[in-house]
Amino acid sequence: MTFKRIAIIGLGLIGGSIGLAVRDDLPGTVTTGYDTDPKVRTRARERQLADVICDDPGDAVRGADLVILCVPIGAMRAAAAAIVADLSPDCVITDVGSSKRSITDVLTDALPGFEIIPAHPVAGTENSGPDAGFSTLFHQRWCIVTPPEGAAQAKVMQLVDFWESLGAMVETMDADHHDRVLAVTSHIPHLIAYTIVGTASDLEQVTRSEVIKYSAGGFRDFTRIAASDPTMWRDVFLNNKDAVLDMLDTFLTDLALMREAIKAGDGQMMHDTFSRTRAIRRSIVALGQDDPRPDFGRSDHK
Amino acid sequence: MTFKRIAIIGLGLIGGSIGLAVRDDLPGTVTTGYDTDPKVRTRARERQLADVICDDPGDAVRGADLVILCVPIGAMRAAAAAIVADLSPDCVITDVGSSKRSITDVLTDALPGFEIIPAHPVAGTENSGPDAGFSTLFHQRWCIVTPPEGAAQAKVMQLVDFWESLGAMVETMDADHHDRVLAVTSHIPHLIAYTIVGTASDLEQVTRSEVIKYSAGGFRDFTRIAASDPTMWRDVFLNNKDAVLDMLDTFLTDLALMREAIKAGDGQMMHDTFSRTRAIRRSIVALGQDDPRPDFGRSDHK
Repeated sequence: MTFKRIAIIGLGLIGGSIGLAVRDDLPGTVTTGYDTDPKVRTRARERQLADVICDDPGDAVRGADLVILCVPIGAMRAAAAAIVADLSPDCVITDVGSSKRSITDVLTDALPGFEIIPAHPVAGTENSGPDAGFSTLFHQRWCIVTPPEGAAQAKVMQLVDFWESLGAMVETMDADHHDRVLAVTSHIPHLIAYTIVGTASDLEQVTRSEVIKYSAGGFRDFTRIAASDPTMWRDVFLNNKDAVLDMLDTFLTDLALMREAIKAGDGQMMHDTFSRTRAIRRSIVALGQDDPRPDFGRSDHK
Repeated sequence: MTFKRIAIIGLGLIGGSIGLAVRDDLPGTVTTGYDTDPKVRTRARERQLADVICDDPGDAVRGADLVILCVPIGAMRAAAAAIVADLSPDCVITDVGSSKRSITDVLTDALPGFEIIPAHPVAGTENSGPDAGFSTLFHQRWCIVTPPEGAAQAKVMQLVDFWESLGAMVETMDADHHDRVLAVTSHIPHLIAYTIVGTASDLEQVTRSEVIKYSAGGFRDFTRIAASDPTMWRDVFLNNKDAVLDMLDTFLTDLALMREAIKAGDGQMMHDTFSRTRAIRRSIVALGQDDPRPDFGRSDHK
């Protein structure tokens, strides 16, 4: 049983990619789209990110059996309030946000009585907005579904099928565990990348122009994720505070040990640590989660 | 005036790439190669990383007018000692190491009276060894030359010309400034990447298998540089201690501020920081120092 009519609220990188992917992978399914920003709606019509782009959120969700909220976490409550009056009573509400506990709580509160099944496709690029999406974004990526207690099993399976139709692999887990997993695989890496890029921009002894010129020594790898959408990421850190602070403190402890090793000239400790980390990359590449070519296959090495 | 005979000591990623690049870009120049590891020499012969692969370091450098030391920093002194008796008195000695003050001091001490002009091509991949090199590695990458006081200007220009022949852009600066610049553009990024990949491997609440599966959320970007050669990087941190510790402390101060912002729920501070970092990436891409395609053009997004 597939969804017949899917409403996409928020037409940025993820919402737009879902619309394009549904057109490719689920012909026969009708998509409607809405975004609060009229400029985004105009661009979404030009790119045909959904079959119908509505100027009113109620029009977008009316008659939909699946509603996907693709807005920053901090905008979830307002998005829910804007659609609640027009939702079909038996529709499934889901989302794509990167912190599941807070979103589950907000949506449960804002949409009482509706079937809410949060989800998180672990996919994206550093680009955002209605021009950023593409139909293959979810291919071979994981999507984590976090059904709240008491969720209807048939509806959960329908949502799992939906994501698999778009090329994703699906795992279910509870919201709190999701938030801890993503803190380490996504939130802390973004926090560190944003911070080091900020640090490098403000040095007295090294100019910004030097940082840019010599970035191929490793720094440039951090700038990609530090170019991600600021609003989305602010909301992630505001809404997954406990898990992020917990992981950050673990990282800071490890970094302090590394600092001591450098200070003490402890080459053995460094070599041991640096030797263990290759295995993780090999596993990521073996699992199809990264490009096996050197330097991610960047074009300059072809 | 170009070099006629170039000896490459150490046939890993950089040494091998130099050999292959000279064959492509400087026909007529003879290359000789040596590596302390007999298995590397065998593989170097198979891949023809140099015109002649010698089993003795003295044979490799005899008659060479340019000798390039492509060994880990900690192996520089032994490499210099192994060739000093066979060097031509007017040859230029250079290297490719990532920390210039310590290498300058070691080579000046080990090769008294010779023309030593250290250099550092800011290029590489996460791969190492005799299979890792390729002839276009230095294209559109910067090479930093750090002539000691009193270096013969004509010889410096000859070395600059050499690197430009291989497709690099060349900048000269003093060794201490190089070490500060590279601390931020290369050494600290590697240190952070090695540390966070180590942290993520050892968590109690999140399994290694989960870290690998959901790495597309950002973590995988860090694993690339954390897969770099452990010996090379141990030596970098042992030999650029002061600049690395200095930059690390600046980063730690900024990260502590970010931690406080998350703890206090200071969304404005986060949004301000996250908004500033996009500009740096745009400049890096505009300067041809990174791939403009989303996700570095990783193959799965084509």
